[in-house]
Amino acid sequence: MAEIRAWASRGPKQKLEPFAFDPGTLGVDEVEITVEYCGLCHSDLSIINNDWGLSQYPVVPGHEIVGRITLLGSNVKGLQLGQKVGVGWNAGSCMHCHECIEGNHNLCLSAQPTIVNHHGGFSERVRAHWIWVIPLPDTLDTATAGPLLCGGITVFSPLLTFGIKPTHHVGIVGIGGLGHMGIKFAKAWGCEVTAFTSSASKENEARAFGAHHVVSIQDNNVLTKMTHSLDLLIVTVNVPMDWTGLLNTLRPNGRLHVVGAVLEPMAIPAINLIFGQKSVSGSPTGNPAALSTMLSFAARHRIAPQVEFFPLSQVNEALAHLRAGKARYRIVLQADFN
Amino acid sequence: MAEIRAWASRGPKQKLEPFAFDPGTLGVDEVEITVEYCGLCHSDLSIINNDWGLSQYPVVPGHEIVGRITLLGSNVKGLQLGQKVGVGWNAGSCMHCHECIEGNHNLCLSAQPTIVNHHGGFSERVRAHWIWVIPLPDTLDTATAGPLLCGGITVFSPLLTFGIKPTHHVGIVGIGGLGHMGIKFAKAWGCEVTAFTSSASKENEARAFGAHHVVSIQDNNVLTKMTHSLDLLIVTVNVPMDWTGLLNTLRPNGRLHVVGAVLEPMAIPAINLIFGQKSVSGSPTGNPAALSTMLSFAARHRIAPQVEFFPLSQVNEALAHLRAGKARYRIVLQADFN
Repeated sequence: MAEIRAWASRGPKQKLEPFAFDPGTLGVDEVEITVEYCGLCHSDLSIINNDWGLSQYPVVPGHEIVGRITLLGSNVKGLQLGQKVGVGWNAGSCMHCHECIEGNHNLCLSAQPTIVNHHGGFSERVRAHWIWVIPLPDTLDTATAGPLLCGGITVFSPLLTFGIKPTHHVGIVGIGGLGHMGIKFAKAWGCEVTAFTSSASKENEARAFGAHHVVSIQDNNVLTKMTHSLDLLIVTVNVPMDWTGLLNTLRPNGRLHVVGAVLEPMAIPAINLIFGQKSVSGSPTGNPAALSTMLSFAARHRIAPQVEFFPLSQVNEALAHLRAGKARYRIVLQADFN
Repeated sequence: MAEIRAWASRGPKQKLEPFAFDPGTLGVDEVEITVEYCGLCHSDLSIINNDWGLSQYPVVPGHEIVGRITLLGSNVKGLQLGQKVGVGWNAGSCMHCHECIEGNHNLCLSAQPTIVNHHGGFSERVRAHWIWVIPLPDTLDTATAGPLLCGGITVFSPLLTFGIKPTHHVGIVGIGGLGHMGIKFAKAWGCEVTAFTSSASKENEARAFGAHHVVSIQDNNVLTKMTHSLDLLIVTVNVPMDWTGLLNTLRPNGRLHVVGAVLEPMAIPAINLIFGQKSVSGSPTGNPAALSTMLSFAARHRIAPQVEFFPLSQVNEALAHLRAGKARYRIVLQADFN
C-alpha cells in the first residue's frame, strides 16, 4: 500500500508540517477516499491544541471531507468506486450497540472521530467505515459542500430531531461558521428567524443569509423585549451567556439548544424551566441518515456555506486566519499534493 | 350569598385561623364546589410562608380539592350539580391565549393559581373556572384522590408529554409526596423504575410502591454504576443535586426533568448535554385534558397516594407534621365544618 501524504501537528499548538504514513491494510468495511476539499472547523483547532485532552499526536486534522472513492473494502455496502462522497466528524462506530442499531450512530459510545486516533482529511486520502461515507447529491457544489458535513449537520440536526415546524420561531445565537448555516437552514425550513450577534458588522450579512430579524446579544433590553417569542434557540457560541435571559425569550414548551461546547457549566434556574415547560439540550453532529437528509435538503434549497478557499499547502495561514476570528464564514482547503 | 367559612393565614409563617369571607357573585364561567377532602401540599407551606414572594394575605391554602358541585355559573360547560369533581393548582386561565386555545392552559401566562389571590380548599366551598373542574371517575376513591390533582399530575405529566414508553427506564429522585406517586405511575406505565432516596428507611416502602430498584442518592458509586442506564429522571426534590452525576446516569437521548423548585441555579455542563443528545427540562402540573387522563389512568390501575388523614380543624397540627418531614407520604384534610 502506498504511503499517504498529509499535514500533521506533532504536539499541542504546533504548526502543521508535511507528514507521511502507511495506512496499512484496508479494513473490509472501510472506504478510502481521495480528498478534493476539506473544511476547517473550530474543533480542528481544539484537537490540534489538545483543548479537550483527547488528542493523539501526530494529529492529522480535517473532518469536513469531500472527495471520490478510490478503494472499497470487500464488505462495503451501497457505495461505488469513483463516487463523490463526504465524511464528517465521525469515521466509524461500533455498529452493534443499541444506538447504532437504532440509527443513531452519532450517539455510539465507541464512535471513532475522524481526527482523534485516526488520520483526518488534511491528507491525500482518508479512510472511513462505509456507513459514515455519505454520497453527495449530483446538484450539490463539491467545492463548498465540506462544511455541511460537520458545521452544517450540527445546526440542521436540532430542526430535524425536535419536531421543529415551519410555523416555529427560531433564534440563532452567534453568527459564525455554524450560525450562518443555521440561519440558512432555519429560513429554508420555513421558520421565522432571529439572528443574535455581538458584531454589528454582521447585521447585513445575517439578513442576506435569511434572518428576518437581527439583534444585539449585548443589549439587555433585547432579551426583555423578546420575552416569550421564540420556540427554539440554537446557541452556537462557546462562551458563557445570560442563560436566564435567553430562557425568558422562549415561549412555553420552548427549547434552548447548545451545540457549542461552553466549558463553564451553565447556570440554569429550575423555576425558569418549570414555568413554561422549557428544555435545555445539546447534540453532537448527526447520524448518517440525517447527514444524507441534510445534503438532499441543502441541494434542493441551494444552501451552501459562505466560504474562503486556501490551498491545503497554506493550511497554517488558514489556521492563523481562523484563530484571529477573521473567517467569513467558513474556510475550505483545497488539496494540492502534486 | 352566604359567607364561606375557611382557615387562613393572615401573614407570613402565621398559624391558620378560622376566617369567613363573602365570595361575591358567582361568575358565569365559575363552579362552586362544597369541599369534602383537600390534600396538603408542600407548596401550600411555601405560599403560607411567602417563600416565592407571590402571597396575598389572608391566604386560604389548599389546592388538591375533592368535593361536589353545589353551584353552576350560567355559562359552565359539561358539568352538573352534585357531580363529584376535583380542582388542583389552577382555578382559572385566560382561555384566549395561544396556550389556552392549544389545550395547554397550565402554561397560560395569566393562569390563576387556586391559592394566590384566590381562596383555596381549606374552606367550606371553593370556586373555579369550569375548565379546571375535573370530574372524578366513579371508581376512584374520593378520600385519597386529592393529592393526585397537584402532586400526582406533576409526576404523571412528564410521562404523558415526552413520549415515554413502557420500554423506557425511569428514575425517580426523592421518595416523598410526589416521588411515591411517581413510582406508582411509572410502574403502571410499564417502565423499569429505579427509586433514588437519601433515606434507607424508605427502601421497603419504595419497593412496595412498585420500584424495581432502590438506590441511595448519597452513595457516589451508585451514580457511576448507573452510567447510561436511564431514559428519564424525574427529580422531585428541591435541594441542589450532583447534576453532572445524574446526567451521566442517562442513556443517549435521555432527559433529566425537574418538578421541584430548586432555588439555586443548576450547574449544567454543556458537554454533558452535547455528547448523548440529552435534555434538562421542567414542567408545572398539567393541563385539564392531562388531569382527566391521569385520573382515568389512576382509576384503571388502582393508583392512589398513600395518605394520612387529619380533620381540617387540626390543620395546624397537619402543617407541623409536614414541616417536620414526617408525612408518610401525603396528608389529606377532611372538611369538618359543622
